Amino acid sequence: MTGWVRVVGLGPGDEALVTPEVRATVDAATDIVGYIPYVRRIAPRDGLTLHESDNRVELDRAAHALEMAAAGRRVVVVSSGDPGVFAMASALFEALEKGPEDWLAIEIGVLPGITAMLAAAARLGAPLGHDFCAINLSDNLKPWSLIEKRLRLAGEAGFAMAFYNPRSASRPHQFATALDILREACGPETLISFARNVSHPDETLRTVTLAEATPEMADMRTVVIVGNADTRRVGPHIYTPRSVV
Amino acid sequence: MTGWVRVVGLGPGDEALVTPEVRATVDAATDIVGYIPYVRRIAPRDGLTLHESDNRVELDRAAHALEMAAAGRRVVVVSSGDPGVFAMASALFEALEKGPEDWLAIEIGVLPGITAMLAAAARLGAPLGHDFCAINLSDNLKPWSLIEKRLRLAGEAGFAMAFYNPRSASRPHQFATALDILREACGPETLISFARNVSHPDETLRTVTLAEATPEMADMRTVVIVGNADTRRVGPHIYTPRSVV
Repeated sequence: MTGWVRVVGLGPGDEALVTPEVRATVDAATDIVGYIPYVRRIAPRDGLTLHESDNRVELDRAAHALEMAAAGRRVVVVSSGDPGVFAMASALFEALEKGPEDWLAIEIGVLPGITAMLAAAARLGAPLGHDFCAINLSDNLKPWSLIEKRLRLAGEAGFAMAFYNPRSASRPHQFATALDILREACGPETLISFARNVSHPDETLRTVTLAEATPEMADMRTVVIVGNADTRRVGPHIYTPRSVV
Repeated sequence: MTGWVRVVGLGPGDEALVTPEVRATVDAATDIVGYIPYVRRIAPRDGLTLHESDNRVELDRAAHALEMAAAGRRVVVVSSGDPGVFAMASALFEALEKGPEDWLAIEIGVLPGITAMLAAAARLGAPLGHDFCAINLSDNLKPWSLIEKRLRLAGEAGFAMAFYNPRSASRPHQFATALDILREACGPETLISFARNVSHPDETLRTVTLAEATPEMADMRTVVIVGNADTRRVGPHIYTPRSVV
C-alpha cells in the first residue's frame, strides 16, 4: 500500500461547513493527526487511529505524519479553518524540508477549508468586500516590531484587516498597543468587529469604532476584523463597498 | 410565507468544494440569482426559478434579489468562491443601502465558500502560510494609482499577496506595470505562481521568479500568488514558512 498525507481544513466548527472533499478524505484515512480539539471532531471507527497532540508542537506532529506516510499509512492532518492560513500546511512543508530526502517522494496534498476570517466576515455581512490583509498578531514566530510595522503599512494602504490570535494571557499588553497603532493609522471612527467562536452555539459578534474598542473585547478564540475608511453599517450588517470613490 | 436572501459561495468549481450548508440552502430556495456560469451550476427542479444575468450588473442583480425576497420569495444569490471576497455580498449590501427603507427588514445571510486564492494556495502547497493580502487588480471600481500604491506598501510590509482579476483584454498593459512594481518592491528572485481554472479538469499551475514572469502568464481565469522573501520550493511544493527570522 502506498501512503500519503493530506492536510485538511475542518472549517471554524460547524460540521455543515466541512467540504465533501475533506469528509471523503477523512473516510479514506488510516490515521488522523492534530491538535487535541480538532482530532476530537473526527468520529472514531475501526481501522482509524487518532493521534492527538498538544498545541505548539506543530513540527513534531508534521514529522510524525510524514513518518507514518513513508511507512505506507494514509494520514490526514487536521487543522481548523483552512490549513494554509496560520495552520498546519506550512508546518508540514517545514518538516518535509528538514526531514530525510526520501520523504520528498511522499504524495502530499492540501485540502482547503473555510478559514475563520471568512466565516466571521460572512456572519457580519461583507467587511472584507474590498482589498484586505490577514495578519497573525502572535509574536511567537516573528518579532513584535514587524507586526507594528505591518499594521501601520496596512492602514496606510487602506486595507481592511483580519487578525488571527489577537490576544493571549501570555502577552496581554500587545493587543492594546495594536489598537493604539490602528487608531492612529486608520482613524478613530473606523469600525472594528470582534467575532468569537464563529459557527459554534455560543458565537458572539460585536462591532464598535476603534475609539470605543478595548483589549478585553478579544481573546484567543476571537477573530478581529478592522474595516477600511468606507466600511459602514446598513441595518444590522457591516460591509465594505467594492468601490473607492 | 416570509422571504429571505442568502448570498452563497459555490467555491472555485469542483462540486466537492461546496459546503453542505450551501447545498442545503440551495435546496430550500425558490429563486436562484447570479452571473450566467454560476447559475448554470445549479440543477433545475420543479419550483425553482433560475435568473441568469450578465457580468457587471451586480447592483441590478442584487436589487432584483431583494425585491423578490420582499415579495416573499426565498432567494439564493450565487457567487463563485466566497461571496465576501470580490464577489456578490458587498453588492447586495450596497443595493440594500440604496433601496427602500422597508428592505432593511428582509432576513439576509451570507454563507461562506472556498475562495479562489485559498483553493489555489492549497494546490500549490502553502504560499499564504504567513501574513498576506488580497488585492483585486481590476481598476473598474478604484483608480489604478491606488492599486500601484497598495502593491508598493504590501511589498514593503513583506506580505505574501494574492491577486484577483489580474488581467483582461480591456486593460492588457496594467499587469505588466504591476509586475514591474513587484520586481522593485519584492526583489526579482521572489516566487510568483499562476493558478488557472483551479479545481477544474483543465487546471494549470505554474511558478516562476518575478524576474521570469511575463504578463501573458495570467488571464481573467487566473489567480496570481506572490510569495514573500522567504517563500520557497520543497520538492514540487511552494510554501511560505510560518516564522520570520
